[in-house]
Amino acid sequence: MRGIRLTLEYDGTDFAGWQRQPAPARSVQQVIEDALAEMTGVRVILRGAGRTDAGVHARAQVASFATESAIPLPGIMRGLNAMLPRDVGVIDAVEVTPELDARRAARGKHYAYRLWNRPARSPLHARWSWHILHPLDEAAMAEAAAALLGEHDFSTFRAAGCDAKHPVRVLRRAELVREEPHLLAIHLEATAFLRGMARIIAGTLVEVGLGRRPAGRVADDLAARDRSRAGRTAPAHGLTLERVIFEV
Amino acid sequence: MRGIRLTLEYDGTDFAGWQRQPAPARSVQQVIEDALAEMTGVRVILRGAGRTDAGVHARAQVASFATESAIPLPGIMRGLNAMLPRDVGVIDAVEVTPELDARRAARGKHYAYRLWNRPARSPLHARWSWHILHPLDEAAMAEAAAALLGEHDFSTFRAAGCDAKHPVRVLRRAELVREEPHLLAIHLEATAFLRGMARIIAGTLVEVGLGRRPAGRVADDLAARDRSRAGRTAPAHGLTLERVIFEV
Repeated sequence: MRGIRLTLEYDGTDFAGWQRQPAPARSVQQVIEDALAEMTGVRVILRGAGRTDAGVHARAQVASFATESAIPLPGIMRGLNAMLPRDVGVIDAVEVTPELDARRAARGKHYAYRLWNRPARSPLHARWSWHILHPLDEAAMAEAAAALLGEHDFSTFRAAGCDAKHPVRVLRRAELVREEPHLLAIHLEATAFLRGMARIIAGTLVEVGLGRRPAGRVADDLAARDRSRAGRTAPAHGLTLERVIFEV
Repeated sequence: MRGIRLTLEYDGTDFAGWQRQPAPARSVQQVIEDALAEMTGVRVILRGAGRTDAGVHARAQVASFATESAIPLPGIMRGLNAMLPRDVGVIDAVEVTPELDARRAARGKHYAYRLWNRPARSPLHARWSWHILHPLDEAAMAEAAAALLGEHDFSTFRAAGCDAKHPVRVLRRAELVREEPHLLAIHLEATAFLRGMARIIAGTLVEVGLGRRPAGRVADDLAARDRSRAGRTAPAHGLTLERVIFEV
């Protein structure tokens, strides 16, 4: 038995999220598990480090599985890339211990939420950014983002239905980056994310940027540990899982 | 009568190119002309500065039309953006003389051809870049590109069926830009482009980059004025019309 860890890139637009679901939902996990079953002749269970929601993209999701197959790594990578639909691909494959579970092994995740900030929408950016028509106050957003850094109970930024045992997380990075003249990205890195956390933070920062919520109030909202104190959940298509961090 | 000049952005993936064609082809010109007819109640003819091929994208195509409509510019822009499908949008609208023809008025065009250069394909870049698996020799490509600069008869880089009266063009920019670690762009700016010229140049430079064609041969190939001397036409989806240049 060997363990294999895949690094995956996908355009989440036409996926019902990472996690396998009852048919006819099309999930990333399912299309890759199906391709692996076809390649090796045996069904495997793929463990993803991040359970991205429907519509969320990944530049480098990580997932692991155990197999008896002797196919060399380059063959697995090329074979999967030939079989998989064009909106998902394998960008790396390495040998790991069969016991490795990418989800448990991950020590952190880096998400980016992208905002297209110009009156006119952008057909070339529409698939992976949220269109905000009115000008955003970047300095106010940066101030609010900084208030979230560190170890906190993030219940204010936790979606209903979150099955995490406790709501304390360490947010190591909350930074605004102007990636293009009209494209503002919110980069978030944490030990782990609660369900909805990245998108609720993004939605709250956008309210701050639009002047609908004072930047100085965000620290109090966080301390209140009350979902009703945060802003709306930003739409899924603006979010990309950029990277999964493992111990060095 | 007033003239209006629109700046348009589109994802060319699902379009049969700029130019209106017999049904059921879906062209950019057609969807915008149809939206303008619905908005103003009168059919207009939209003159595009660049006739992009099927699958080619535009970050800033320019097109003009004349109309009797009194709708203010912001209303035309907002109305079109509300009516147009999500893969095309209006990013600017200005008043011009009714006689202006964006195609004749243009003094130059800037295209970028993007190459995704990594063994694994990229689902997030696949819509607008050509996947080249093997490493490209960027220095050799830059040397070949430089040999094309200036005023030349570009018959070697002219597709069959080109209806231009003469094949002489001035190539003002032919530059390689590494936009991301695995993303190499060929930026081309010329007074005007012959049919297929940008894609034949890109296809030829890729052959140079892969070591299949010496960089030093490109000047001779250009001088030969013979299409059979150039490389293959690169696929349409890698090409984006970045900008149309007008007199200042």
